[in-house]
Parts: sequence; C-alpha cells; structure tokens
Amino acid sequence: MALHERFTPCSQVSEAMDSDQIADQLALLNDWELIHHHGIARLQKHFRFNDFAQALAFTNRVGTLAEQYNHHPELTTSWGEVRIRWWTQKIRGLHLNDFILADKTDRL
Amino acid sequence: MALHERFTPCSQVSEAMDSDQIADQLALLNDWELIHHHGIARLQKHFRFNDFAQALAFTNRVGTLAEQYNHHPELTTSWGEVRIRWWTQKIRGLHLNDFILADKTDRL
Repeated sequence: MALHERFTPCSQVSEAMDSDQIADQLALLNDWELIHHHGIARLQKHFRFNDFAQALAFTNRVGTLAEQYNHHPELTTSWGEVRIRWWTQKIRGLHLNDFILADKTDRL
Repeated sequence: MALHERFTPCSQVSEAMDSDQIADQLALLNDWELIHHHGIARLQKHFRFNDFAQALAFTNRVGTLAEQYNHHPELTTSWGEVRIRWWTQKIRGLHLNDFILADKTDRL
C-alpha cells in the first residue's frame, strides 16, 4: 500500500506516535528534522530558492497540498526560503499523516 | 508628505533607527509590537482569519506589496493566522521603510 493511501481523516486521528515510531518514520524521510516547539514534536525542513517570488510560489504549492488533505502546516516564507513545520494539533504531536505530507512536500 | 512617499530604496539605506526613533514611530502604528530575534529589532503583528485559505490569500497580498517595494518581510502562515515580521536585514535593524510597510500591511 502506498504511503498516501494510508492518510487518516482528522476525525479518526486519536493518538500521537511514540519516540520509537517517530525515529522509524523519520529515517524514511529526506532531511526533515524533529523539533520540539511549545512542547509539541514537529517535523521541520528549510527549502531554499533564488528569490522571494519563488519562495512564495512554493508556499502556495504546499498550501494547495494542505487544502487537498485538509491538514495544514506552518509555512514561514521569507526572501529565498520557506520553512515548513508539520504536526497534528489535535493530538499535540506527530501522526503518520505528518510524515506522509512531509514526503509529499518533497515531491512538489 | 505622505508616509509612502518617504520610502527609501534599499541601496540608500545606511543606518538603523535608534530606540527613541523606534518608540516615536511605533506609537503611530496600530497594534504592532517591537520584538528582538537573533539580536535584531523587528516589527511583529498577528493577523487572524477564519480558515487556512483566507490566511494564505493575505500572505499573497503582503507578498505582492513586498515585491512592489522590493522589501520583504517574514510571513508565517498557519490555519487561520499570519504572523508578519518587518525589519531591514542590510542594517540589522529597523528603518522608516519597515514602519511604512507595516502601515501598508494594515491597509491591505
């Protein structure tokens, strides 16, 4: 089963992953880092671009992906860079959904 | 002279405002706060929206403003919220330009 077929609707998300599950999934991603912000585990990655317009265009592509799955990251757009953070607010932690969308972000 | 007519091209920006100048200009803005991040003074404000799409649309409107003036803020977009930070990297501080664009951000 492909990763994207395993996306869980928000209403059915109930439990955050534990640290072993997180470590296993993180190893499958490309250069995403695990951070903790306000006590919540999150996936973070910086994407670099040649100017502001390209960065903002990427933010919009991630935004379209987020709307498609009704799961939304934090996107910090500045000149030549977008920082993305994925987590699941409902469970105040990480769900497989976040890894699925981090992987999809890389493929945009 | 209207505030927007006093915008200085980046090539001519040479000096950061001192704390008295900042306090004077900050008093003229609507609910912007002064923060220091990585040792650099910045203007920050949170804008709230009803969903992700409206937040992203606002990010794009600020992006258009930024491109128009060739001066770019940091825009942190999440569900129902955009956090904006204006500062001038060249002088590692605040310039009147930042207050002008903070004010213009409010009028979008």
